Amino acid sequence: MSNELYDVIIVGGGISGLAAAKWLKENGLTNVLVLEARDRVGGRTHTKRDPKVGWVDLGGSYVGPTQDHLLRIAKELGVETFLVNEIEDLVYFKKVSMKTPTATMPGTIHFLNQGTRYTFPYNGLPKLANGGQEDLLKLLHRLDELGEDISVREPWTSPSATELDSITFKEFLDKEFPGEGVRDYGLLVHNAFLAAASHECSLLFVVWYIKQAFGTRRIFSATNGGQERKFHGGSQLISEGLSDKIGRENILLSKVVNKIEQNCDFATVSTIDNQIYKTKHVIIAMSPCLIPRIYFKPELEPLKNQLYQRMPMGSVIKTIVYYESCWWRGLNMCGTLLVDGSDGDMEASPVEYTFDDTKPDGSKPAIMGFILANRARKLRNLTPEERRDLICKSYAKGFGSDEALRPVHYEEFDWQAEKFSSGCYTGICSPGVMTVYWPYLRSPHGRIFFAGTETATVWSGYMNGAVEAGERAAREVLAERGLISKNQIWRDEPESKDFPHKPFDDMVL
Amino acid sequence: MSNELYDVIIVGGGISGLAAAKWLKENGLTNVLVLEARDRVGGRTHTKRDPKVGWVDLGGSYVGPTQDHLLRIAKELGVETFLVNEIEDLVYFKKVSMKTPTATMPGTIHFLNQGTRYTFPYNGLPKLANGGQEDLLKLLHRLDELGEDISVREPWTSPSATELDSITFKEFLDKEFPGEGVRDYGLLVHNAFLAAASHECSLLFVVWYIKQAFGTRRIFSATNGGQERKFHGGSQLISEGLSDKIGRENILLSKVVNKIEQNCDFATVSTIDNQIYKTKHVIIAMSPCLIPRIYFKPELEPLKNQLYQRMPMGSVIKTIVYYESCWWRGLNMCGTLLVDGSDGDMEASPVEYTFDDTKPDGSKPAIMGFILANRARKLRNLTPEERRDLICKSYAKGFGSDEALRPVHYEEFDWQAEKFSSGCYTGICSPGVMTVYWPYLRSPHGRIFFAGTETATVWSGYMNGAVEAGERAAREVLAERGLISKNQIWRDEPESKDFPHKPFDDMVL
Repeated sequence: MSNELYDVIIVGGGISGLAAAKWLKENGLTNVLVLEARDRVGGRTHTKRDPKVGWVDLGGSYVGPTQDHLLRIAKELGVETFLVNEIEDLVYFKKVSMKTPTATMPGTIHFLNQGTRYTFPYNGLPKLANGGQEDLLKLLHRLDELGEDISVREPWTSPSATELDSITFKEFLDKEFPGEGVRDYGLLVHNAFLAAASHECSLLFVVWYIKQAFGTRRIFSATNGGQERKFHGGSQLISEGLSDKIGRENILLSKVVNKIEQNCDFATVSTIDNQIYKTKHVIIAMSPCLIPRIYFKPELEPLKNQLYQRMPMGSVIKTIVYYESCWWRGLNMCGTLLVDGSDGDMEASPVEYTFDDTKPDGSKPAIMGFILANRARKLRNLTPEERRDLICKSYAKGFGSDEALRPVHYEEFDWQAEKFSSGCYTGICSPGVMTVYWPYLRSPHGRIFFAGTETATVWSGYMNGAVEAGERAAREVLAERGLISKNQIWRDEPESKDFPHKPFDDMVL
Repeated sequence: MSNELYDVIIVGGGISGLAAAKWLKENGLTNVLVLEARDRVGGRTHTKRDPKVGWVDLGGSYVGPTQDHLLRIAKELGVETFLVNEIEDLVYFKKVSMKTPTATMPGTIHFLNQGTRYTFPYNGLPKLANGGQEDLLKLLHRLDELGEDISVREPWTSPSATELDSITFKEFLDKEFPGEGVRDYGLLVHNAFLAAASHECSLLFVVWYIKQAFGTRRIFSATNGGQERKFHGGSQLISEGLSDKIGRENILLSKVVNKIEQNCDFATVSTIDNQIYKTKHVIIAMSPCLIPRIYFKPELEPLKNQLYQRMPMGSVIKTIVYYESCWWRGLNMCGTLLVDGSDGDMEASPVEYTFDDTKPDGSKPAIMGFILANRARKLRNLTPEERRDLICKSYAKGFGSDEALRPVHYEEFDWQAEKFSSGCYTGICSPGVMTVYWPYLRSPHGRIFFAGTETATVWSGYMNGAVEAGERAAREVLAERGLISKNQIWRDEPESKDFPHKPFDDMVL
């Protein structure tokens, strides 16, 4: 054990841990050390650089208005953004149900052999038959309405919390939106945004998740929403820029922390390769389920320990198929495809949700697609080539073009197999967890404070939440050290001037 | 690192790990080492010896017919059993609902200020008003019926599995048994038998759990069921007897395993105090959620890793209140009390489920009571004295006697705070876990095999399952070593001659 006594050791070199370290260094605690288990920084963001693709975000990638913490950091680091293409129409491809015949609707509906393709503008909704489109709008309104009395910081205190936390999102849909069209679409959107099946999550968790991302329009939209933009050069630039600000010599890679002991004067942080570091304080910035892999002495509060048993990570394989050209744009489709995920034929539509992933200069034409929830769990047993072929076939059907069958390159990343994330995008909650265990989500453990996107209150689950949580945990340490007052720990983030919180226009229906 | 190469290292010295070690030693692999994190053997069983109580089981305690694995071991070790008292009536105390007025029924119902006391014989059901008793019987039949096509060994393969695994037990009650009486009783029984709220568990999990415990009558009954008996001297005698058979020198206590590495020839098992042991094979016998606390190299299969994020432990505080006399027997009550747990007033009835815990010779009169699920999570913040006082008050109400207010001694054990169990009785599954992840429950990881009661198929969650799972994992190692054939791994346990599988008589209604 070196005799050096650090001010703060940060466990986890993802965006949250790095944002914490930067905040500390800039606010009076300069002797900071980051220990990262992987051989790279970035956590659940991971940009691959390769001549075939230029660069590609294999993990977290999107940014948009209201994500002001992240936008501030990006601006400071000089990382520029570009728009995700949504000029042409979006597509919802719904397989023919065995139960209900599909009625015809004028306009944008096309009948295919195996399903129906609905095209709609970025500010619209698919024109589902039998009142389905109106139901969709009602569903969005209902989710926002349920969020009205939910506290984003302390959701367990809200009057309706216990009731909302006693049912699953699927149960809610079954009860309030049983119409086949709206229900199937609701299940799909749940899968797409939480990387988990709708019976895995509590309604309270879903309602809270939407609210803390500024409501249904903001969370589900590209244009003016959470998926509006990507970073030029990839989101890894955020972590690399943060690393430079912190000083790369203060970040140790391939250091798996496995023990934290505390005494009256300091804490010792041990790693699996038997290094021991002494520090006044610790910030942990990891997936919640990974935290108990550290042996704590004194041990964690029992309900904090039980909380970490109850926030499993979602399941996602991110895929990117490259083509010679953006052929979809020529067909008046922007590259966004939602594919009905409600029936059991997972191999027919491995991907449920796509975006155009072409570079802003038009080079490297590509479609990004998420394999989600049970599909991710099942299809990870295939080879990458098998997955690519299934994906291309389903794109051919969904976009209605055999061009989809002629990829020139394929990239993918299975976040389920990434040991130090253990899943993506975020930790999820089944019924009964938030109302009972979330009071322990951010509770300090002696000299230890807790960051990580799951502990955030503004775009938790996203890169923005990682920044917010890391900086908040840093301020908790600063307050503990008497460098700021307790009431300075929480802080409202100013609205980005470059990307203001524009209201949404009415839906085009 | 010592150069000794063990045949098998067993991680976990609870009943499952010890049963594995004994089986191995008696079947050809004699060089066996058990590493236990606690300073005692026994895992989730724990008998305290003290002049005030003689002995008391603070953890797992009950045994009954059909638990043939455990009964065989007990007989071999010379541990005797005695009957849990059920001579007099059982009591169900139902608080007055704010919603529905309670109708009167002749016979065993008594009206009290704050609720209704229903007394009923061991082979009966409370005479709930408004058809509630008939509904209860229907609920039991329905749960058994749903289990009919469920495979106890591979429940994920059953035709109805996906549907049953997409809803919570609460959702099932709400849909099929909405009558207030039956629903409240169903919620209570769920809490009592799984130490979790009914919206926390998948219906498939509950149906499977009941089936692998031989059905509703067997699992819920004392007489002729899972709670018929206790061990003279306490259940710790099982683990101590197993330890003697294994040789206590082969069991190391206070050894927290934190790393297991495998190569072509052997595995190394490391502990938090930096000891390293070499072995040909490993059996892990721990709560599932604790397994990823070990750093595995090579790492666990990703879906096995995600499984262990998704089997949290239940929440229970076991309490025992001692009195001068068995005053309840004089009031024609056997000591079994079920207290309505469906409303929010947790402090008014901290305990939901009790048994007479008096010694078989009539000494140390006592009532054992479980504080369960959300009550356990909330009431752990009180002092033991506060909990005791609340319990005594609710016993006074439930049994209808102020004798309950005059305890002479109190014992309790909070299993939520026991780091190396991290909860009790067992690992539970919310919707979507069993059908997707359970194929990985017993899958070996190279040289590592998996025991623990959660991996059992006969009384999983109980001491019997611990024995079954440990012995099965031992036979997996024996098969791997060529000492038995693969088809000898699974083995039907002969019926105990002392405690045969007597059928149940019809309910007395």
